[in-house]
Amino acid sequence: MFPETGTASLAAAPAATAVFTAVLTEGPLSRVTLARRLGLSSAAVTKAARPLIDMGYLYELAATERTSAGAGRPASPLAVQADREFFVGVKITADELIGVVCDLCADVRATARRPLSDPSVEAVLTELGRLVDGLLDGPGDYRSRTRRLGLAVSGDVDRTTGQVRYSPFLHWRNVPLSQQAARTTGLTVTVENDVKALTAAEHWFGEGVGAESFALVTVGTGIGCGLVVNGRLVSGSHGVAGEIGHIAVDASGPDCHCGGRGCVEAIAGTEAIVRQARDRSGRPELTIDDAVALARAGDERVGAVFARAGSAIGSGIAAVANLVGPARIVVSGEGLAAYDLFEAHIRAGFERQAFGAAVDCPLSIRPLPFEEWARGAAAVSIQSLVVA
Amino acid sequence: MFPETGTASLAAAPAATAVFTAVLTEGPLSRVTLARRLGLSSAAVTKAARPLIDMGYLYELAATERTSAGAGRPASPLAVQADREFFVGVKITADELIGVVCDLCADVRATARRPLSDPSVEAVLTELGRLVDGLLDGPGDYRSRTRRLGLAVSGDVDRTTGQVRYSPFLHWRNVPLSQQAARTTGLTVTVENDVKALTAAEHWFGEGVGAESFALVTVGTGIGCGLVVNGRLVSGSHGVAGEIGHIAVDASGPDCHCGGRGCVEAIAGTEAIVRQARDRSGRPELTIDDAVALARAGDERVGAVFARAGSAIGSGIAAVANLVGPARIVVSGEGLAAYDLFEAHIRAGFERQAFGAAVDCPLSIRPLPFEEWARGAAAVSIQSLVVA
Repeated sequence: MFPETGTASLAAAPAATAVFTAVLTEGPLSRVTLARRLGLSSAAVTKAARPLIDMGYLYELAATERTSAGAGRPASPLAVQADREFFVGVKITADELIGVVCDLCADVRATARRPLSDPSVEAVLTELGRLVDGLLDGPGDYRSRTRRLGLAVSGDVDRTTGQVRYSPFLHWRNVPLSQQAARTTGLTVTVENDVKALTAAEHWFGEGVGAESFALVTVGTGIGCGLVVNGRLVSGSHGVAGEIGHIAVDASGPDCHCGGRGCVEAIAGTEAIVRQARDRSGRPELTIDDAVALARAGDERVGAVFARAGSAIGSGIAAVANLVGPARIVVSGEGLAAYDLFEAHIRAGFERQAFGAAVDCPLSIRPLPFEEWARGAAAVSIQSLVVA
Repeated sequence: MFPETGTASLAAAPAATAVFTAVLTEGPLSRVTLARRLGLSSAAVTKAARPLIDMGYLYELAATERTSAGAGRPASPLAVQADREFFVGVKITADELIGVVCDLCADVRATARRPLSDPSVEAVLTELGRLVDGLLDGPGDYRSRTRRLGLAVSGDVDRTTGQVRYSPFLHWRNVPLSQQAARTTGLTVTVENDVKALTAAEHWFGEGVGAESFALVTVGTGIGCGLVVNGRLVSGSHGVAGEIGHIAVDASGPDCHCGGRGCVEAIAGTEAIVRQARDRSGRPELTIDDAVALARAGDERVGAVFARAGSAIGSGIAAVANLVGPARIVVSGEGLAAYDLFEAHIRAGFERQAFGAAVDCPLSIRPLPFEEWARGAAAVSIQSLVVA
């Protein structure tokens, strides 16, 4: 049923990759439209699409246009056969695995979670095997059409080698995760930084489709940013990119764990908010949920902590807009469960610091269901099928 | 002598553009190397190079390798005929025009300056005509081999239409400069923002050659930044990019003319430095040259102004490194005439705020001869010959 090359990408030729990517992210598209958009001849599009149709990944919709009267081949749009193949995506956190099964269009078909009592690599792999088995052997008959697993981990991840170089929350260093997870699950595994994985999902299947540039900012324990510029994810020549959390926005602000001072994350990360809320309220046992409840109940001292945090995030987002000018910016993450406390201050900070026409950059500020992280991992796995 | 199409780019086909660009920026290169690097067949490279050789832009060096014994055509490297065509570049400031003649490899062959008593469009065009005539009719016989003029202007410039939308220092709005300058000089004119023009010169002919990403930061009256990411200049979806001067680095810092607070430029731009030096020294007549002299003579109050400015610039540069991770960053501009006062503080600010491996990004901090801006304008003109 599958081609021999189980782990290779489907589309080896650049034209085939371009056609598959375009139909997957923006389809259905006719061959004429594809040829025009991709700068290919019609013959090249037809040749590139043929094996993808033969393998069942693409199919032809009923013809809707003819190139000209009597011109022969009708221009049937090409569409993706979404259930041709399924993909598991898993977000690994220090205390839980969150998993999804997605189809080829990154629509979520099933979800599952498993608590982790121990974030050691061995324990995570054991639970990962159980999670994947549960997802694939449950209702839906996904097992027979699933070959690939995407994993998302916070920290420094080398997508090319599948290695987790450093994950502070998991206390992992230099873990060859893709190889180990492949042994455990029998699947072809991709590993990506969680923010970059979410960005990939938005770029191919969300608000970033068709944008030459966009940014995704995540707010929570860490404050991160995925960037697409000139049509491609920015990965950073020295392995660092999108570190909006460590932009300095307040020269007399608090010290940050990174060694810097007044970083966005040192003011607006979850821990920073808790610390400031404890100081201001004089209640050293306060949790983030307590802080949110107090602010919502009208506590001005704790409300000011969220206001300062929102303003710092807004300044950081303005720095992104001023420097790279994305077409749009999505602001999300688990921290935005308290988004009623943040949103106005994020927007005000952004509008104050956005330079000139940069203020026209639309901000989408919205909470992020935790399964979205796992869907991001699946999206990277889908990309690995499509792009070599 | 020239092809009929006086204003069109030489290389209409993508393959020809790719070949010409590669030889110009990284040459000499053999056809075999070009084919491999550009993903083209040898036949396609040969076909693309032929008209460029026929027109005298490229030539074949003596053969240095054969593809295989008896394989026929020797793999002679292709090189650029630098004096095949010349280009004028002019930087327009509010009180002076600075002009250069460059050859096809952007090497400066002649320079000239003309003071401006009046920055009106009419006065600038009149002086521009005289400057260009002086450059082309002086020694070197450039006139007969010059068709193109590049102009560089600070502010908001639309390179596509050749319009200066807004230049605060010149007090210009919506000036169709390329058309007007073409009428005055009889040349084909490109207009670009000055920082982007400098970045183009570094990208094609300087420290940025071959880099997938790099940044050029300019320090002076304004503080700007040109960015190349994923191999291309970042222009900003909303017309704004590279505005490092308006990143907020100090939440309790001075108000900025842009409406923001604590912007890098509000702390480290020339005017900001003069204002702070006057405040600290109690001498309201102080100029920037006086401030530099006082700081160099050991005045601690004025020295602290430069230290704060350097630290703010370093924080801004760290934001660039943390967000987009350029391979290298060049820091330059007329402000760096006082670079002995700045450099250590720029580096310290950068090192404090660069996140993790972002600190590995090399900084080249160097003064910028004013002719470099004019060379940048010429480089954009060269690009317009090569790329449609």
